[in-house]
Amino acid sequence: MSQYPEPIDKLIQELKMFPGVGKKSATRMVFYLLEQPREKSVDLAKSIVNINDQLYTCSKCFNIAESDPCQICDDPKRDREKICVVESPKDIFAFEKTGEYRGLYHVLGGVLSPLNGVGPEDLHIEDLLSRLDGIKEVILAINPTKDGETTATYLAKLIKKRNIKVTRVAQGLPMGVNIEYADDVTLTRALEGRTDI
Amino acid sequence: MSQYPEPIDKLIQELKMFPGVGKKSATRMVFYLLEQPREKSVDLAKSIVNINDQLYTCSKCFNIAESDPCQICDDPKRDREKICVVESPKDIFAFEKTGEYRGLYHVLGGVLSPLNGVGPEDLHIEDLLSRLDGIKEVILAINPTKDGETTATYLAKLIKKRNIKVTRVAQGLPMGVNIEYADDVTLTRALEGRTDI
Repeated sequence: MSQYPEPIDKLIQELKMFPGVGKKSATRMVFYLLEQPREKSVDLAKSIVNINDQLYTCSKCFNIAESDPCQICDDPKRDREKICVVESPKDIFAFEKTGEYRGLYHVLGGVLSPLNGVGPEDLHIEDLLSRLDGIKEVILAINPTKDGETTATYLAKLIKKRNIKVTRVAQGLPMGVNIEYADDVTLTRALEGRTDI
Repeated sequence: MSQYPEPIDKLIQELKMFPGVGKKSATRMVFYLLEQPREKSVDLAKSIVNINDQLYTCSKCFNIAESDPCQICDDPKRDREKICVVESPKDIFAFEKTGEYRGLYHVLGGVLSPLNGVGPEDLHIEDLLSRLDGIKEVILAINPTKDGETTATYLAKLIKKRNIKVTRVAQGLPMGVNIEYADDVTLTRALEGRTDI
């Protein structure tokens, strides 16, 4: 017996799929679970299945929500002339937490990445273009990575063709950061994007 | 909508119970799961329930195993004159991985901890004492923490009364450590336990 019993090994393997969870953390999680009453495991198992069974992908904006269309697409008080384009539903939750944006969203489902074989047909780009009637401004809120930049440029070109204003969320120093420790690209962007005070 | 949908929030809360999993990691795990096909979540949910339903606590040594008694207690080739006392089943797996120990084990299920309200009656101490017939040596392999030390001393006293040899796994410098960075207690123990070469 140089291995854990099979059910433990299997669960460790499955937990390892999560980002940031290695073999040690997975093992710790399994043994923690073994010390809990059975109901706790059952509850956890149910919740895991529930996020698949009780949540829908909004057929308009591809947000994850408890209804389709999602609460945001369905809200008559939202500004229907603005669409904020994000990579994933997580980003929508982040923006909504600020309470500052009242327009609509569109989830791309990733970014263009030739190296990983992700082309325009793998993202919700066609769906975005089909939503542009009546839109006055498309705000690109794509992560400032290399692939993100490519995707933003690609989208901007497509959208500008239709005479719609395209903007991009500002890049610069985040709150609380020390200039001394900021990376070159961030500093360059912060300089380029300087504003009058 | 300043919150995640309820099923997501619920799963985040449940994942946060794991040691070392905070709100950020839990959120990351949930969104990762949302991107996976449904079967992956179902498999994970099943495995979580299985570790409770397919595993038993050995009624002799309190190890976690696929059978009761466990593979080790049931193995006629093990040395039945030695018992190695550990805090948790995890420790058994660690020792078994070395392949160096051929005796039996006994899981305490924790250590004495007056501050946390853990007394002798909360651990498998009575069960250990009832297993000592024919035992020549009890090896205490309890973690070298403050509560672990207390527990070891307490057990040693009880077992020695029965004229059984009690030993303790050696303390000292672990492999690969730099003496410069070792803590005071470890260094003291390493000195105290020095051996001839």
